[in-house]
Amino acid sequence: MDNFVFSNPTKIVFGTGVEMQAGTEVKPFSDRVLLHFGGGSAVRSGLLSRIRESLVATGIHCVELGGVEPNPRLSLVREGIALCRREKLSFILALGGGSVIDSAKAIAVGVPYAGDVWDFFDYSTQPATALPVGAVLTIPAAGSESSSRSVISNTEMQLKRSVTTDLIRPRFALMNPELTYTLPPFQSACGIADIMSHVMERYFTNTRDVELTDRLCEAALRTVIVSAPSVMCDPCCYAARAEIMWTGSIAHNDLLNTGREGDWASHAIGHELSAFYDAIHGAGLAVIFPAWMKFVYRHDLARFAQFANRVWEVEMDHFNPEKTALEGIRRMELFFHSLGLPATLSDMGIPDDRFAEIATKCTVRGKGTTGKFVKLDPKAVIAILTLAK
Amino acid sequence: MDNFVFSNPTKIVFGTGVEMQAGTEVKPFSDRVLLHFGGGSAVRSGLLSRIRESLVATGIHCVELGGVEPNPRLSLVREGIALCRREKLSFILALGGGSVIDSAKAIAVGVPYAGDVWDFFDYSTQPATALPVGAVLTIPAAGSESSSRSVISNTEMQLKRSVTTDLIRPRFALMNPELTYTLPPFQSACGIADIMSHVMERYFTNTRDVELTDRLCEAALRTVIVSAPSVMCDPCCYAARAEIMWTGSIAHNDLLNTGREGDWASHAIGHELSAFYDAIHGAGLAVIFPAWMKFVYRHDLARFAQFANRVWEVEMDHFNPEKTALEGIRRMELFFHSLGLPATLSDMGIPDDRFAEIATKCTVRGKGTTGKFVKLDPKAVIAILTLAK
Repeated sequence: MDNFVFSNPTKIVFGTGVEMQAGTEVKPFSDRVLLHFGGGSAVRSGLLSRIRESLVATGIHCVELGGVEPNPRLSLVREGIALCRREKLSFILALGGGSVIDSAKAIAVGVPYAGDVWDFFDYSTQPATALPVGAVLTIPAAGSESSSRSVISNTEMQLKRSVTTDLIRPRFALMNPELTYTLPPFQSACGIADIMSHVMERYFTNTRDVELTDRLCEAALRTVIVSAPSVMCDPCCYAARAEIMWTGSIAHNDLLNTGREGDWASHAIGHELSAFYDAIHGAGLAVIFPAWMKFVYRHDLARFAQFANRVWEVEMDHFNPEKTALEGIRRMELFFHSLGLPATLSDMGIPDDRFAEIATKCTVRGKGTTGKFVKLDPKAVIAILTLAK
Repeated sequence: MDNFVFSNPTKIVFGTGVEMQAGTEVKPFSDRVLLHFGGGSAVRSGLLSRIRESLVATGIHCVELGGVEPNPRLSLVREGIALCRREKLSFILALGGGSVIDSAKAIAVGVPYAGDVWDFFDYSTQPATALPVGAVLTIPAAGSESSSRSVISNTEMQLKRSVTTDLIRPRFALMNPELTYTLPPFQSACGIADIMSHVMERYFTNTRDVELTDRLCEAALRTVIVSAPSVMCDPCCYAARAEIMWTGSIAHNDLLNTGREGDWASHAIGHELSAFYDAIHGAGLAVIFPAWMKFVYRHDLARFAQFANRVWEVEMDHFNPEKTALEGIRRMELFFHSLGLPATLSDMGIPDDRFAEIATKCTVRGKGTTGKFVKLDPKAVIAILTLAK
């Protein structure tokens, strides 16, 4: 186990009806709030007006900015920053999933900064301060509701980049599983793949003696695996929706990587697919992760056999751990397939003519590597994309 | 899954040498600190002087108060409160295990309160404010380093009572597994029993649909079970000491009971054993928990069978789940025995002549019940004590 520092102060308010506490949760921070959201579903479902009501009832002035798209855009972030400055707003309440929350976080670091917010995302400087952020979660997937990260797409530059700082960790997250009942099945499936990927990026590590966190990761993955079919069969199954929603936060709140180094190559490759083709994050991960596993599993056969045995309930073949490991990967593929997720890049409509370009972009302009479990050079990234095509 | 609110902001700084960061972690809170500790081991090991050095190096004035005993005493708490007021100290740094940290927390709520600190423990009032507390952990057991609870013994009244408030959750915990190398084997074993009990109190619940937290509990228990033998064989096994130390915090930081109601009867009975006989907390739990299980397991056979199967690796007898459940309890007893823990109250030197009195004290003066999984009246408590004798 490596030395580590862990702290996650986000206040989780979880259960039926908790979105109506928005006003009381925001109030201690500010009286002037940006209410940030995505497309029409929050409006149509009446959620937006319920939140607005809760804010107004506690005497909070709120200004609205909708229109966040999946793979949230830098352009809207800049618009949000200008709006906050103009209207003197000092709190951002995100109402949506990871894209909305990430957009809110980017606005939060941008408002008090004199330069352009992209400076933080191209690593030319670090944020020194940020407006406080809160979240009403409607899509369990990204874990952004209690994470310290924001991922933003710069469409002009075809770049998808992130900022990580405790300054943008939401102060609170209101999580009502009922708000996820209306998610289309494909979006639920993408969220599930995203949640599982967050755990697996942490699970595949070279750090030794990580008994507890291995087992916590396995607990999270097993929970999602047994809950997912219920969600797909019955979108209004509270129990299963609740399990997936809470697991989605645990998967990405940094607990599961205490004392260990994760991999994150699949996310890096997936982000490039989003940057190039606007690929849906969870769907991309469902395609890339199995390909990545097939490419790297020999690096630590014991870990992959443990993964197969404990997570996918593959009986351990003690005389042939490779067989066990491969059966685990196969079951994961079958599982993703059972959720209606794509199995290949071509299923996603992604052609194979820009693999070299993608590989270059996610390996420090082709001069470095991506991933920690196995360090992938551009050739390795191309091999994984080829396995996935 | 029940609705819940969860937040645990304690900053965990974990690993080799982290105690030397005491000064830098305290500094943002205060320049005048009470350094609170127990017996001679912190002095003999040189730990106390290293901490003192770290504080002084950052310009912090510190006043020392040692002498905390297991089952920490109200009398010393009162002394600490007077000392803090006299010396105008505004931060309490606890250096030790649960008893020291609990004592520090009690001092922290007592200093700004005009009345007597016991008012909080006999529930006649709730704390409104508290001095900030930090911890350098030397005994993994109580989980007090990131919990919101303090348990104090009033020896005059033979009472052991607790206060629970987020105000006393430590701001940081410095956790170096190496500091636990010198724990005597019996104390290590008691700590292990305490950690497991914290998980089991949460595990045995009537709340339905608690998939994730069940599995997180099982992960914590399995980790302790596989790590304990290494600690007992080789007290300086960093890997195993680290697993147990980190699990000890996770066991009691409130994560494992998100959305579920725990039981806590075994703790209630154990606390009375400490109040009456100054019984060692972990040892008492190792005796009471199996007796409690034998008394209540028929209340939810499925849960006890799952516990046996997933935690103790008992093969599930699908045609006879009771057999599976009982084998789980038996393996737990064998496990505690293998650590050198007592199996009966008489092993602990506790006679059977005051069972009725104990039962009365832990059931609201005999007029109520204790425990949530099964509500135990005084007769039931006596039955459990009799099973344990």
